Amino acid sequence: VTRTLFEAEIREQPAALRRLLDEGRDAVERAADGLRAKPARFAVLAARGSSDNAARYGQYLFGIRNQLAVALATPSLYTQYEAAPHLEGALVVGISQSGQSPDIVAVVREGRRQGAFTVAITNEPASPLGQAAEHVIALRAGTERAVAATKTYTTQLLALAMLSAGLAGDAAAWAELQALPDALNDTLADNETTAAQASRFREHTGLVTVARGYNFSTAFEIALKVTETCAIPAVPYSSADLLHGPTAMIEPELPVLLVAPGPREFPDLDQVETLARERGAPIVAVSDRAHVLERADVALRLPPGTPEWLTPLTAIVPGQLFALGLSLARGKHPDAPRGLAKVTLTR
Amino acid sequence: VTRTLFEAEIREQPAALRRLLDEGRDAVERAADGLRAKPARFAVLAARGSSDNAARYGQYLFGIRNQLAVALATPSLYTQYEAAPHLEGALVVGISQSGQSPDIVAVVREGRRQGAFTVAITNEPASPLGQAAEHVIALRAGTERAVAATKTYTTQLLALAMLSAGLAGDAAAWAELQALPDALNDTLADNETTAAQASRFREHTGLVTVARGYNFSTAFEIALKVTETCAIPAVPYSSADLLHGPTAMIEPELPVLLVAPGPREFPDLDQVETLARERGAPIVAVSDRAHVLERADVALRLPPGTPEWLTPLTAIVPGQLFALGLSLARGKHPDAPRGLAKVTLTR
Repeated sequence: VTRTLFEAEIREQPAALRRLLDEGRDAVERAADGLRAKPARFAVLAARGSSDNAARYGQYLFGIRNQLAVALATPSLYTQYEAAPHLEGALVVGISQSGQSPDIVAVVREGRRQGAFTVAITNEPASPLGQAAEHVIALRAGTERAVAATKTYTTQLLALAMLSAGLAGDAAAWAELQALPDALNDTLADNETTAAQASRFREHTGLVTVARGYNFSTAFEIALKVTETCAIPAVPYSSADLLHGPTAMIEPELPVLLVAPGPREFPDLDQVETLARERGAPIVAVSDRAHVLERADVALRLPPGTPEWLTPLTAIVPGQLFALGLSLARGKHPDAPRGLAKVTLTR
Repeated sequence: VTRTLFEAEIREQPAALRRLLDEGRDAVERAADGLRAKPARFAVLAARGSSDNAARYGQYLFGIRNQLAVALATPSLYTQYEAAPHLEGALVVGISQSGQSPDIVAVVREGRRQGAFTVAITNEPASPLGQAAEHVIALRAGTERAVAATKTYTTQLLALAMLSAGLAGDAAAWAELQALPDALNDTLADNETTAAQASRFREHTGLVTVARGYNFSTAFEIALKVTETCAIPAVPYSSADLLHGPTAMIEPELPVLLVAPGPREFPDLDQVETLARERGAPIVAVSDRAHVLERADVALRLPPGTPEWLTPLTAIVPGQLFALGLSLARGKHPDAPRGLAKVTLTR
């Protein structure tokens, strides 16, 4: 029995990805054609909350696969300081579920005014954001009723991945994208006990999530889901940044969640895992690598075979289920976290 | 009696800023002249740890005052993925106390290979980073012996601010910079009891720091100092992002540290303060605004009159003293946090 909207929407994700792949490709290819005709010198991605974590995926995606340096926008420049930077020759992408937030709209509007190539990625194509951009990629995720984003996050990742594949004109990439709905179904099937396992951390007062590369976005998004639905501070870190500073916090009281899908291994991430084991911190591992899972206190399995650039779409799913289980175990209501509205209008 | 290197180096900051202003201007002006002759289309700043928080200041500084869109580099692109983005026409700045970290050196080296305008900001001009860049701005901070960065952080902020002033050819800005050493002296004098006041939070297991705009960097750096020296997770948030999501964590158990210097007021930041008061969360305020300080449980005073763009240099000082006091109250040794080496070589 599905008891929460949050869980229902987690389980809707394979179908939502399928719909976007089937119905959204034309809009993506139109945007990609336009951008191939007028290549961007760099990219600026504007977003807040979960959408900003999707943008963080875009930093690696466009950087690695399309050779585009990507800046995450600092929207206060456009609204609070009225001092927009030069955006000529840039690709400017606004990402927002609702398409409502004035600061995100302001970045895209300014980009278009300066002649940048503008794209909106939103679940509401008729929104102010959709109207501000030259090209609109509609997420087609259906209404998201839980306040914490799930299916709009994974469809945002997919929209970015489709745009990257379109830009590269990469037929192999499109074939890999087509396999995603099944991979998410497999991930859900492999994680039937994840929510129940999360309950062992119900007395803990914090969490640190760690990753590197593409899944830095996943570390951020899992931390945000846990903070929103469980009301405890969760801190995301790149394993490289963690080793440059705050390893002192690694103690038995603080669970460490490693996002470590293969096949690529990061020496920094292995070092963090070793350190956490030496210090007696509980380890939660999201991975498809046997030796990582075996050593973890809680093993959250990913199906093998997903190409690295698409693992953020599968790796977030166990994180969502972990947040669900921890939220319920802590007596919270994951559908409507206290103080969080579905649409937030920041300037 | 100064008992720790950490405190001694906090108190050395006014003199370190004075030295950089006096001895570093020529190198800055040379870099600025070169860049004015060949204006950059955008900027990429590469750094880790505290230096990355200085880079975050650079995002706002160059964005607002020099109209440059700024990307924080994702160094794994250059090292782990061997897929550097196009950097032609970019300003590429590497920021590192030691100048040793191979991933930061790799970004600058690649920028130079592609013909970008490269600058190193480092305390060790003969380091690999100093050798990789066309222009070097030496911090002249003297040896930093405490592991957690203080005087190298504020001199990095100053080096960026000097570069921005040089780029803009702005005489008024240079005059404002000259007032900084005195402003830091005043900040130290106004915060004699800050370390002692921090001890009231010795039983707390977390902290959230909040700011917006220029001082987003300060929220990150205070969170990092507290995490490093006190071994508790501290989470930095933009007030806009906090309102888009994780406000559920605001509870009596979690102190909220607001970085809110005036004169600019951010409605989002006021909303966070109101929410924290309603929820009964202890509030620590770093500010020069009377009404903000009066309502706070712990008021950390800034001297009035510092122009907004330079407040990150004063606002970090009470944060450093807060971390010092909390560290000692928790029985930690702030000079040598467990597991943290002064030089970290991530790839």
